Amino acid sequence: MKIERESSVALYVQIADRLARDIAEGRYKPFQRLPSEQSLMERFGVSRVTVREAIALLARQGLVVAKQGKGTFVGGPVVHHELQELRGFYDALVTKGHTPETRLLKFEPVQAPAPIELALGAAGREVMFLRRVYSLHGHPFALASAWLPPAAAQVSWDQASRHPIYSILEELLGLRVTRAEVSILARTAEAEEAELLALPERSPVLVMERVSYSAEGAALECSRFSIRPENYRFSLSVQGPLAITRKIQEVAPARPTSSASQHRRKK
Amino acid sequence: MKIERESSVALYVQIADRLARDIAEGRYKPFQRLPSEQSLMERFGVSRVTVREAIALLARQGLVVAKQGKGTFVGGPVVHHELQELRGFYDALVTKGHTPETRLLKFEPVQAPAPIELALGAAGREVMFLRRVYSLHGHPFALASAWLPPAAAQVSWDQASRHPIYSILEELLGLRVTRAEVSILARTAEAEEAELLALPERSPVLVMERVSYSAEGAALECSRFSIRPENYRFSLSVQGPLAITRKIQEVAPARPTSSASQHRRKK
Repeated sequence: MKIERESSVALYVQIADRLARDIAEGRYKPFQRLPSEQSLMERFGVSRVTVREAIALLARQGLVVAKQGKGTFVGGPVVHHELQELRGFYDALVTKGHTPETRLLKFEPVQAPAPIELALGAAGREVMFLRRVYSLHGHPFALASAWLPPAAAQVSWDQASRHPIYSILEELLGLRVTRAEVSILARTAEAEEAELLALPERSPVLVMERVSYSAEGAALECSRFSIRPENYRFSLSVQGPLAITRKIQEVAPARPTSSASQHRRKK
Repeated sequence: MKIERESSVALYVQIADRLARDIAEGRYKPFQRLPSEQSLMERFGVSRVTVREAIALLARQGLVVAKQGKGTFVGGPVVHHELQELRGFYDALVTKGHTPETRLLKFEPVQAPAPIELALGAAGREVMFLRRVYSLHGHPFALASAWLPPAAAQVSWDQASRHPIYSILEELLGLRVTRAEVSILARTAEAEEAELLALPERSPVLVMERVSYSAEGAALECSRFSIRPENYRFSLSVQGPLAITRKIQEVAPARPTSSASQHRRKK
């Protein structure tokens, strides 16, 4: 893409698009420093203001991060976690070309919270709790917490550190996963999550909750993945036909707010 | 469910489960005040401490909200937005029994951001920008921002206020939607979002981004739904077989942190 001075697209947007493509194509790698403002001014033949506007746009898009006194750095790789296929969390990342480093923090018998104990059919018995942190390029980005059936007590710490959850179930315990119910939500990070993910307090986290089932309908695991949200997105291709299209049943007059009237179209 | 004093499940957990069921079954309605601590103590025959623990658990689950000096209130209805079928945002809610009130804030021609202009095949032309706020029981919970093709300029303000996006495309413009690419992410609310959704500053928002396509592969709309996250979750049932299960390729020693050593299993 050349920079087109006659285009209706603002110069800084064109430059941001060009730099975004450089990042996508690996010309600038995750966590690498971007060239200086001066060298970008020379490369594109534009003013410092335009370069700064382009970088500010990239920062808003989460592609670069400005570090006080150190320059602007490419953000972590953007992970597109596809939801279409039944796949473990680790596999979903590997499939997209990311090889996360992992560290097992806990693998121990616990008394599960009541709904999980019930789901796992382990009323009154202890289940195995696993906690693992995932990093990319040395930066932690996800925390997995999983409850596994009592049978998982036979799995060693060393095995648990080398096998993703689905691999523990299938390869070590001989349990076949055939379906998962997945929920995705967002909330403020809890203190422990914030610490393990190196997040500032009160940062948002993206959360995937999952319950996986056998063909017979028995729950085999309940897990929760808390994710640093800046470079992570779940994605899904939804095929039609469109189920229905309804008209909006009532347009609420609702309480007008000052902002609403500002945004309301002037007639 | 009776409260079982001999159960291994703590009393406060049993009481929280019972109250959660009451809320799910509509005995206590969204935004309604919960009975006083005194009356819950009498109903369940437990101490004030136990009632408080039960309510604290419900609060952590997002089911109730304590309001200083006013008591404890049932939270907004939990929306389970199913991703399985191709369905508009409004329809996904109505299908789950929620009838959101809506208010159109903007419907006007704009110069779209470059990537959206390109996606809509509208290079150099203005596209129609729509912004709508969704509320439940008078509480705003979602903000839709959508870019529609130039042809949408023929749609009136009044029509746009009564038709969801997919209905504008299909019924008013005769464009058939056959596929959508959906992404789900989380981030800190922008100032305008926070204001329109009545969120405190720096609150997390759950975001769904969507691009919808015709059978011929033309993009028909690009939209973004910013959602108050406390009572909202996207859900999906993923069918097997399990695609693959890989072993973890390398267990990173990673930088040990104080919390990691605390959490590490004692051997």
